Order: sequence, then structure tokens, then C-alpha cells
Amino acid sequence: MVDTDDPRVVAAAWSRLAEPADPAAGHLVRALGADAALAWVLDAAAGPDVAERAIRRLHGARPGLPDELAPARLLRAVSRWAPRTRGLDPRRELRSLDLLGGTLLLPGDPRWPRALDDLGVLAPHCLWVRGEPDLGGASAGSVALVGARACTEYGRHVAAELAHGLASRGVTVVSGGAYGIDAAAHRAALAGRGTTVAYLAGGIDRLYPAGNADLLRGVLDAGGAVVGEVPPGSVPSRVRFLLRNRLIAATARATVVVEAAWRSGALSTAARAAELLRPVGAVPGPVTSMASSGCHRLLRDGAAVCVTDVDEVAELALPVGDGLPDGGSGDRARGGTASGAGTPDGLDGVGRRLFDALPLRRAADVASIARTAGLALDETRGALGLLELAGFAVQEAGSWRRASSGNR
Amino acid sequence: MVDTDDPRVVAAAWSRLAEPADPAAGHLVRALGADAALAWVLDAAAGPDVAERAIRRLHGARPGLPDELAPARLLRAVSRWAPRTRGLDPRRELRSLDLLGGTLLLPGDPRWPRALDDLGVLAPHCLWVRGEPDLGGASAGSVALVGARACTEYGRHVAAELAHGLASRGVTVVSGGAYGIDAAAHRAALAGRGTTVAYLAGGIDRLYPAGNADLLRGVLDAGGAVVGEVPPGSVPSRVRFLLRNRLIAATARATVVVEAAWRSGALSTAARAAELLRPVGAVPGPVTSMASSGCHRLLRDGAAVCVTDVDEVAELALPVGDGLPDGGSGDRARGGTASGAGTPDGLDGVGRRLFDALPLRRAADVASIARTAGLALDETRGALGLLELAGFAVQEAGSWRRASSGNR
Repeated sequence: MVDTDDPRVVAAAWSRLAEPADPAAGHLVRALGADAALAWVLDAAAGPDVAERAIRRLHGARPGLPDELAPARLLRAVSRWAPRTRGLDPRRELRSLDLLGGTLLLPGDPRWPRALDDLGVLAPHCLWVRGEPDLGGASAGSVALVGARACTEYGRHVAAELAHGLASRGVTVVSGGAYGIDAAAHRAALAGRGTTVAYLAGGIDRLYPAGNADLLRGVLDAGGAVVGEVPPGSVPSRVRFLLRNRLIAATARATVVVEAAWRSGALSTAARAAELLRPVGAVPGPVTSMASSGCHRLLRDGAAVCVTDVDEVAELALPVGDGLPDGGSGDRARGGTASGAGTPDGLDGVGRRLFDALPLRRAADVASIARTAGLALDETRGALGLLELAGFAVQEAGSWRRASSGNR
Repeated sequence: MVDTDDPRVVAAAWSRLAEPADPAAGHLVRALGADAALAWVLDAAAGPDVAERAIRRLHGARPGLPDELAPARLLRAVSRWAPRTRGLDPRRELRSLDLLGGTLLLPGDPRWPRALDDLGVLAPHCLWVRGEPDLGGASAGSVALVGARACTEYGRHVAAELAHGLASRGVTVVSGGAYGIDAAAHRAALAGRGTTVAYLAGGIDRLYPAGNADLLRGVLDAGGAVVGEVPPGSVPSRVRFLLRNRLIAATARATVVVEAAWRSGALSTAARAAELLRPVGAVPGPVTSMASSGCHRLLRDGAAVCVTDVDEVAELALPVGDGLPDGGSGDRARGGTASGAGTPDGLDGVGRRLFDALPLRRAADVASIARTAGLALDETRGALGLLELAGFAVQEAGSWRRASSGNR
């Protein structure tokens, strides 16, 4: 039997029972709590009659459940989950994870990327992580670089330039571990001695695709992470690839599509990022290249900002908000902001706290700035890189201070 | 003496006296009429004392003249014009024009491109035209293709593709006759057996630059035109190049920047077009190419729409207006419009009249459609090409009918 008192077991069970982004699972967990919801499903899964009675009882006891849990829908959901309740053994998967030296992250863990909470009921039940388990800071100083598997030499080159530039400034490069643009981004982030995180569509026991296994081991060795939301042993299906994209879009501060054909999966990552109000960038390319046609589509539709170098990517990831007197980003000149005094009025939470914590004259080391700002070390490192790229911070022999307005 | 009773002489005199887009000249002509304004200037130009008295008398007789004609400004203007009144002989320049077989177009002439009127007081006093003098229709079915002289093979290729595609559908290709993108656009328009118009910065007696003289003669031979706003014999100066760009921006229905470096003059054409509320497109290119950086700048700033092929350029030039229920261009899918019934609600004047004049079933020839629509033949031909590109019109063996909604 499954021990519904152990939160790790419960979360692992949910990640096995329900496909990623199953809204019924998300709503049931939200309504009852993960443990009670699991116990209820394990009971209801005994058979159609049992399920119908359980649903009636549930609706009787809990009036006002959301539409997504209406009896007919919930019945269909239980019938989806029921086959997987047979032989369900989360402890076996947790043992696999231990053997891999991995970590199960639950929502609420300080290392949990809080940016995932923006997914609401579609957030993952847990994250299966190999490598560095602290993903909490990555959302502050991270950029997703995504694109086509069938990329061109041009796309590979630009992905590498951007990833190297971001990584060497301490910005985490997030991608999907696939061939093509993803691989170029991970590889160049490693070359830039930076941190990179790969979100896989299947179980993290299998470093997929096989041709990238060495690269992904390199990601782990370099202090990065390989992350999945389905348990070890799960295969990466087409729909899981698409749903995995929402994790990339949500955890990264900005998503940049480097190269994508007209119907590339990378466009779905861009669409998810836009839905989550994350900035989206697209790298232009030759109009004669079909591999750039998806990027041009995003630009034509106004769904993405045109980005051509690492500074522009950083500007995207560290946005100056709408509160500026002259109407925001359209007025910003290259490498500057509308604010002449060098006060980054529109910086968001982390950026603002960090900027306030930066010494004006004598540079301080990252640990002392992190303490002052009350931020995690990783988070501080990544966000400092973005502040530097945007011209708000200056690095001097490894220590940091505020940029004087003359430097901007 | 200059005969201020002959409107051709008066206009030719103004185009010699005042530099292009001289606001004082434009305001003076607007306030007094071109002939009286010229007579006044010829008197006032006798010397500083005479000028000051003339200005006092003028302000006494005409209270409420605009600020641009305030005494101090008008005095400076007269001192700019005075040196050129000596030896002023417009008839000599008109004779040069006759020898070239050219035409002097005046505002109000039915062949005058009325789109120039949007320039207000900065409109040219006249146009010196070699080749086809009827420029009146060009504004309906014309697109400006502009870009860097120092272009790449890629830019040349894209300019040629776009120009050929537009020209072969009867859309006039407007450009500046320069090396690089301009030349590629004119050349490919000729290859597409289309009409192309070159606006020069200097006098049209000299087909400048010399290396493009054969090309520009080809433009004339193919029924196109070479146009200037300064008289024969005038040299193309840097400032005249920049001011010439406003004529391209104003007369074309849309302006597309094919390739432009970060500080290319082509960006000024784009800026003028945007000020005139003409649609602006930019062709993306490799981010590794400095020759595309100006285009990417326009895209980043939201100053231009990303265009990648001739269909997208046509969509730009034949815009569907703001009156659509779902908020306009952002919602338009590739190759269609928001209007399912195939009714182009947002078509502007010429496009709308032409669409209404198109037979539903049996195709009609251009002349009959032009008669029905009450439009000039050239105008009709160009606009039909744009309607075809946008999917509103169908050509059958040289005759035209409305596209059935099924074709769109």
C-alpha cells in the first residue's frame, strides 16, 4: 500500500498517476490537499461503481468544487488514473532516485522554483532532480534558450554565443536537453563555466536523447541540474515534450527562441512564456532560411522582441517596468534606460533588492551582497550578472558595486 | 528678369532658390501663393535694409503669419535665398529639361503624386521628371525598397526577390537609384517587366551615381521615371540625400528596409514613412551581419513590421484598417484576414473602390475596371497587383475578377 502520510511518497505517486498538467489532478490536490486527494483516488479507483459513489460523496461533502471536478469530468479523470494505481509503488521510484544521487523537490521546499507557482493547478506535483537541487535561485537569474532540433550552423552559432555570454556572467541557461539549439546552449554554457539546467520530458534516470547523454552528464558535473516532472522510468512522449515546455517557460526569467521553423515545438515554449507574462525574445535570421521562419513569425505577430546579442537578451530578462514616465521599453535607447539618474525605477523584486544592496563605492563580494539583500547566493550571482549586463552593476576583481550613472 | 506670371517658371525658381524642405519657403508660398511669394523674395533680396523693410511691410499687411515666418527667421531665410536670386534663370533650366525630354510637374497637375501633399509645407515646389511623367498613380500601387549602399549578397538577393515579385504583379518599385539595395531593387523590377521610379538627390540631368547611369537609362526605357526636386545642374549633397528620402517615403504606399547598418540613411526613410503614417517593414537577416543591424533596430523598437517575402510586403502595402472587430493586424493569420466573408472591410480608398469595381464572376480587363472604379489606368494596374497579392483579386488570362472567399 501507498503511505499517504509521507509527503514525498504522495507527490511521487501523483507524478506517476497523472500526466503532466492534468487539470483534474491539480484541482483535486488544491481542493483536498495532495495526501487526502491521493487517498480518495486510491479508494475511488477500485471500479466504476465505486468511483461514482466516491464522487457523489465528495460532491456531497464539498459543495462548490470547481467545474474541472464536475462529476462527469472527475469520473473520466479517475478512469485515467485507475490503471496506474495498480502496482503503484512510489518508494521504488524514490529508491531509483536515491541510487542516482537525485533529489525530490516538493512545492514549499526553499529550493523549489517559486516561479512554477504561476502555473497554478498546472504546476508539477514535484520535481525529480539530478545534480544541484537548489533550483530556487535559478528563476531570478536564468534565461531559457530554446529552438529547433533541426537547426542550422547559424542557429548553433548564435545559441552558443548567447549561452556563453549569459553563463560567463553567472546567468543560468535553461533549456530542454534536446539536439540542435538546446544542446548548443547547454554546451556553450558549460564552456562559459556557467550553470545550466535541462528540463527533460521523460524520467531523469535516462539521459535522453542518448546522443546528448555525455553532454547532460557534463551539465551535472558542472554544478547544473537535469530535471523531470515524471518519475524515473517514464518515457518521453510527444505530449510530454510539449508540456515540459511550460516548465522551461515558467522557471526562466525570459525565453529566447534562437531558431525555429514555422511549426516548431519551440514556439509552444514561447507561447507558454507569453501566457505567463514572461518576456519572450526571438533571434532573427536570413529570410531564406526556413529554420528562422518561426522566429520571424513571432516577430511579425508582435509575440516576441527582436534580440540579436547577449546584451539585448539581458535587457529582456531584467526588464524595466511600465512605471517609467515616458511609456516604457519603446523609449529605451540601446544600453541605457529612460531614467537619466541611473535609478532603475522599474526593476522587479529581486533586481531591485539587489540593486539597493549594492555598495555605491567600494565593491563587496557576492556573499556579503547576498546577506545584505537577503537573497540566496545562487540567486544573487545570477541576478548580479543580469544587473551587470543591463549596466546597473560593475564587477571589480570578483567584487561588485553599483554602476555610476556615467557608466550607463 | 524672372516672369512670375508663368507657374512653371515660378516653381522652377523656387526649386532653385530654396533647399528641399525649407520650412520658411513652404510657409511663404502657402501664405502668399508661389508667384507673389517669389515676387516678394526677388524684391527683398536686394540687400539687408531692403529685406528688413520688406519684412516689416509684409507683417504689417499680413498680421498672424506663422512663427516660421517671424521677422528674424524670415530675414535669415531671405539671406539664404538672396545669393541665388542673382543670375536666377529658370527658363534656362526648363530648356535643359526640354532637351532631356523631361517634364516639370507642379502640385495640382493630375499626374502629381497627391501623396506628397501629406508633407505639408515641406512638400517639393515641383518635380523634375525624366521618363513617364504620370506619377499620380504610383502612390496607389507602389512600394519603396530601400537599404544600404554597402549591402551584402544576401541583401541584394532579398531586394531582388521582393522587387521582382512586386513588379511582376504590377506594383511600382520606388527607390533612390543608389548602389547596393536601391540598384538591386530597380534592376529586378526591370527584370520583372515592371515599373520602377528613382528619386534622385541631385538634378536629373546627371544620372547619379555614374555607375548606375546605364541602369537608370534602363528604368527610363522601361516606362519608369527618374525624379528630382532640385533643377538640372544641381549637385546631390549629403543633406539633399537625406531630404530626398522624404519623397520616397511619402510617394510609396509602404517602405521596406531590406538591409541597413546601425546608422544607415535608409533608416531615415523609414522614420519619415512612419511620421507620415505609412506602413514600414524591415527584412531581418543574420544577427552576425552588421548590414542587418539597422533592420533589427527597427524591429526591436517596434518601428517596423518584420517582412520576409513578397506576400508579407503586399500585406503591408494594402493594409486592412483598424475597423476590424478583433483589433486589427495582430489577429490576421498569414495570407488571410479577420473577415471570414472575404469582405475587405478595412481597405483604404483606392483598394476599396477597386474591389467594389471588380466583377464577381466573369473577369474584366484593366481598362474596363479602371473606368468602373473611376481610377487612372496605372493606378488600377498597381492596385490590382496588391489586391491579388492580398488574395482579394484573381487574374485570369490578363483579366481580373474578385477572389471568391474560398480562394482566400
